[in-house]
Amino acid sequence: MPLLVPTYSDIAAKKRLQRDKNFKKEWLVAPANLPPASSPSVIGWIEKCGELTSKQLEITASSAPEILLAVRDKVWTAFEVAEAFCHRASLAHQLTNCLSEVFFDEGLQQARELDEYYERTGQLKGPLHGLPISLKDNINVKGQATTVGIVSFSFSPEKFGEDSVILAMLRDMGAIFYVKTNVPVAMMMPESINHIYGNTTNPLNRKLSAGGSSGGEAALLALKGSPLGIGSDIGGSIRIPASFNNLYSLKPTFGRFPTYGSRSGLPGLESVNSVNGPLTTSIDSLELYCKTLVGAEPWIYDPKAVPLPWRTVKLPETLNIAVLEDDGVVRPTPPLLRGMKMVREKLTKSGHIVIDWNPEEHLRLSELITEFFLSDGGKHVKDECNKTGEPFFPYMQMYGTAPEKGVASLWALQAERTKLVKKFLDRWNATASATGNGRPIDAIILPATPFPGNPNGKFQNYVGYTSPFNAVDYSVGTIPVTTADRGLDTREVRETFYGETDKAVYDNYDADESHGGAVCLQVVGRKFEEEKVIELLKALKAIMES
Amino acid sequence: MPLLVPTYSDIAAKKRLQRDKNFKKEWLVAPANLPPASSPSVIGWIEKCGELTSKQLEITASSAPEILLAVRDKVWTAFEVAEAFCHRASLAHQLTNCLSEVFFDEGLQQARELDEYYERTGQLKGPLHGLPISLKDNINVKGQATTVGIVSFSFSPEKFGEDSVILAMLRDMGAIFYVKTNVPVAMMMPESINHIYGNTTNPLNRKLSAGGSSGGEAALLALKGSPLGIGSDIGGSIRIPASFNNLYSLKPTFGRFPTYGSRSGLPGLESVNSVNGPLTTSIDSLELYCKTLVGAEPWIYDPKAVPLPWRTVKLPETLNIAVLEDDGVVRPTPPLLRGMKMVREKLTKSGHIVIDWNPEEHLRLSELITEFFLSDGGKHVKDECNKTGEPFFPYMQMYGTAPEKGVASLWALQAERTKLVKKFLDRWNATASATGNGRPIDAIILPATPFPGNPNGKFQNYVGYTSPFNAVDYSVGTIPVTTADRGLDTREVRETFYGETDKAVYDNYDADESHGGAVCLQVVGRKFEEEKVIELLKALKAIMES
Repeated sequence: MPLLVPTYSDIAAKKRLQRDKNFKKEWLVAPANLPPASSPSVIGWIEKCGELTSKQLEITASSAPEILLAVRDKVWTAFEVAEAFCHRASLAHQLTNCLSEVFFDEGLQQARELDEYYERTGQLKGPLHGLPISLKDNINVKGQATTVGIVSFSFSPEKFGEDSVILAMLRDMGAIFYVKTNVPVAMMMPESINHIYGNTTNPLNRKLSAGGSSGGEAALLALKGSPLGIGSDIGGSIRIPASFNNLYSLKPTFGRFPTYGSRSGLPGLESVNSVNGPLTTSIDSLELYCKTLVGAEPWIYDPKAVPLPWRTVKLPETLNIAVLEDDGVVRPTPPLLRGMKMVREKLTKSGHIVIDWNPEEHLRLSELITEFFLSDGGKHVKDECNKTGEPFFPYMQMYGTAPEKGVASLWALQAERTKLVKKFLDRWNATASATGNGRPIDAIILPATPFPGNPNGKFQNYVGYTSPFNAVDYSVGTIPVTTADRGLDTREVRETFYGETDKAVYDNYDADESHGGAVCLQVVGRKFEEEKVIELLKALKAIMES
Repeated sequence: MPLLVPTYSDIAAKKRLQRDKNFKKEWLVAPANLPPASSPSVIGWIEKCGELTSKQLEITASSAPEILLAVRDKVWTAFEVAEAFCHRASLAHQLTNCLSEVFFDEGLQQARELDEYYERTGQLKGPLHGLPISLKDNINVKGQATTVGIVSFSFSPEKFGEDSVILAMLRDMGAIFYVKTNVPVAMMMPESINHIYGNTTNPLNRKLSAGGSSGGEAALLALKGSPLGIGSDIGGSIRIPASFNNLYSLKPTFGRFPTYGSRSGLPGLESVNSVNGPLTTSIDSLELYCKTLVGAEPWIYDPKAVPLPWRTVKLPETLNIAVLEDDGVVRPTPPLLRGMKMVREKLTKSGHIVIDWNPEEHLRLSELITEFFLSDGGKHVKDECNKTGEPFFPYMQMYGTAPEKGVASLWALQAERTKLVKKFLDRWNATASATGNGRPIDAIILPATPFPGNPNGKFQNYVGYTSPFNAVDYSVGTIPVTTADRGLDTREVRETFYGETDKAVYDNYDADESHGGAVCLQVVGRKFEEEKVIELLKALKAIMES
C-alpha cells in the first residue's frame, strides 16, 4: 500500500489549525456580528463593537511611552496591557487575517512574570518593561515557528530553539511578545498572501491589499492590535505596507538594528541586505523604540551591527527638501499626487526650501535589486516550494523562470550598483548649489507606491519608488498625510504612458474603489540618519498640521 | 604584412621605461656604490651613504605630526619636506625595487603651491598641509596610472581622470603625493612581484620578501622614504608586509575609511571587502592619519563609509588580552614564537590578564575567504592576463583553474560565513567568564604570518593568521616587537606536523637566512574599534619597553 504523502494543502491546513487553536474562544466574534464585506473600512469598528472594556480601549489607544509610564506608575499592570492587546489583536485578525503565529498564553505568562518581578524587587526589568511588541513572521522567537509563508517551513522546525538577536535584546529589556504577523511567500511579494494563511486585507479599505511583505504587521497596527511592530524591508517591505495603512515606520540603514537570527526568504543574499524596523501609529513610539534598541548596543551581540550610538539631532530652521512626485516610469495615481502637492505647498508656505529631485539612477537601481533577488535562479524558493508541491503565485513566477547567475556576472552588477550609489550621493551633495542656502537637501519626499493601496491581487509589481533606497541603503521613514477621496481624486486624463506598467496602474485606478485608502509618503535621509529622519517626521507632522 | 602585436614583456618594458624616466638622474646612485647583495640588511645605509643632507635626514626621520608642526612653524618649507622624501624614496627604490608610479615633479609642484598659498594667505591649506603620503598602487590618482601589477593595465588608462575619494580628501587637506608602490599581480599574492616591475625585497633582509600585497609600501616605509603610506587589505595585505617590515599599521573595519575609486584586483567582489589603512614607523603618525581622515567625514563623499566620528578611548587599567601562539594549522617559526612569549611575559609581569585564544573558526573562515576570492572562477584576472598573454605566477595558479561558482552556492557560503562570524563574536563575549574580572577581552594578540618574512618566492601561501579577521571584519593593528636572531631562534625539533603547509614552513625555516627579519604581531580589536586598537598599540609599546 503506497504511503499517503500529504499535499501542500494538507500541511498548510494542519499548520493553520494549529494556529487557530491558539485563539481564545471567548474573544472570537461570531461571523454574523463582524462587519459585512460591503463595509470596506473597518477602522473604528473595534472601538464600537463592545468587545473591549473602556480600559482596554484606553490601553490600546496609547503610545509605547504612555504604556511604559503607566506600567511603571502602576496605573496598569503588564498583564492588563498584554491582555488588552492580545484581545484586540484577535479582533484585528478576524477583520483582516493579519496573524500568522499566535501565542497569547506565552505573552500573558511573560506579563505575569514581569508584574511579579516588579512587585517583588521594586525594579523594572528594563526600559521596555511591559511593552507588547508584535513581530513580522520572519523574526525567530524561541518556542515558536517561522514559516515566512512557505508551506515546507510549517513544521520545520516546529519551534525555534532560540530567539533572534533582536528578540533576545528586546525580551531582556522587558518587551512582551504575543503574535507574529502574516507575510507573502518568502516575503518576496508586495501583498501578504501565502498558501498557509491566505491574504491580509487593508483595514482602511478591505478591497485593498494590506501590502507586503510586512502586511500582516501593518494591518494589525492600523487596528491598534499592537502599539508597535517590527517589520523588515529589502525592497520596500516595511514602507509599502506602512504606506498602505497610514503608519509611521522606519527602514534603517543596514547595521543600525540587529538582524542576525531572523529567517530569510533568500538566505545568504548580501548584494542587498534585508533590514528590520518599526511600524506604528505614533512617532513617539517609533522614536522610543529606535533609541532604546540602539541604546542597548546591538553591536555587542550582532556581528553586522555598527557601533553608532543614538544621537541628538537638531534640524536646521529652514529645511531643504527635494520632492519627487513622478519618477517618469509609473505616474502615481491622483491621491498620491494630491498628497505630494499638499506637502509641497505646506513646506513652501512654512518657509522651507523645496526643489525637485531627479530620479536619474532610480530605475536602474530598482532593476539591479530585482536582479540580485533572482540571482540564485530562484533556487532557494523553488527548492522549498518543491518539497511540498506548493505552486507559485503569479507575483512569484519569475522565481521559477530566472536563470541562475554566475558569480562573475554578479560581480559586474555589484560594481555597477556601487557606481550608481556613488552618483546618487554626489547628486545629493550637489543639491547644495540648488537650495539657495549653500546646504544640500535634508531629505527627499516621495510616494512609496503609485497607489493608496492596490485592489487585492493587482499590485502591478512595481517597487521603483522604494527599492532604490535599499540599493543606496539610506534611512527612510513614512508619514501619513491624508486618505484617498473619491470626490477629490478622480482619474487624470492621460493619453500617453511611460510604459505598460504605467498604463496598467492608470487603468487599474478607480477613485471609488480606492476611497479611504492611505496616502502616506516616504521621507528619505542619508545613510545612518535614522535620528534625523525621525526628527523630520516630527517636523513634517507639525508642518502638515499647521 | 602582419601587424606586430607587442608581447606582454614589450608592454611591461615600455611601462617600466616610462616610470624610470621619472627618477631624477642626480639622485640615482651608481650600481657600484649601492650595498652589495652579500649585505642583506640595508636598514641604516641611507643614513650613512652621504646622498642626503643632514637636514634631509632629519626631515625623513620625523613623524607626521613633527613634520606638520615644522611646516606650520616655518622650520621647513613643504618643498624641502617633499624633496627630502622624494630623494629618499628614490634611494629606497634602488635598494628594494619598491616603487611602481613615480611622480616627484607633481609632488614637488604641489609642495610649491602649498608654500605659496601659506605665504600668501597666512593659512594652512588643511590639517595635512605639507605631509607627503605614499600610496599603494591601487589608489587612483588624477594624472597617474594604476596597474595593480597587471600588464594589460599599463596604459589602460594611461592616466586616471580623477582622484579616488580618499585621495581627493587627503589632497584637499594638504597632503602631497609623489609615489605609488609595488604590488603583486592583482594584489592577490603575498609577495609583491609582477611582470611589470618585478619583485620588492625586504630592507631588513633582502633575502626575504617585503610581503604583499602592500609590499612596496612597507619596504619604502621601513627605509623612511615616506613618513606615512596607505596600503590595502582583503586577506592580510596590509598586515603581512607591515609585519615583515616591523611597521605599525592598521587594517580598519570596512566603512571606517573611504574606499571608493580605487582599482580593485577583483572588482565587484563584496563577500569580503577590501579596506585601506595606514602603515608607518610611528604610532603618532598612525593616530594622526586616522583621526584626521575620519574627522574629515568620509561618509559625505564615500557611499560605503559609516558616519562614525573618531572617539576618545580610555583603556581599562588592567588589560584583558587573549593570545594565540599557534593556530594548530601552521606553527609559527621560532622568532614569532619568541615574540609571542615576550609579549605574554611582559603583559603578565605588568599585571595584565592573559588568556589563550581558541582559533576555532579561523581555518574555515580563512578557507571561505579563499573561496570568495576565487568565486568568479578567476575570470577577471584571467581576462586581463589573456589580453597580453601574461602568464600566471605560481601563487596565482588557482585563479587559472578554479571553476566559476553559481550564485546559489555563493549564497550558501555567505550564510555559512555569517554564522561563523556570529560564533566568533559570541566566543569573544564569552571570554568575560575567563578573564576573572567579568569583562571580555580587549584584544587578541597573534602573529600575522608564521615567519619573519619569507625567503623570496617561498611564502607557502598560508594566510590563516590574517584572513579570518577580514572575514569577521575586525580592526587590527600591527606592532613591531623584535627581530629574528640566528642565535636565539634556532629551529625547533618537531617530528609530527599539522599538515603539508606546516611541514613546508618548518622545512623552509633557516635561522641564518631569517636573521634580522621582523617580528611584528597583530593586535585585534572588535569591529570599528580603530581608536581602541591604536590606544592598545601605544599601551603595548610602553609595556614592551618597560
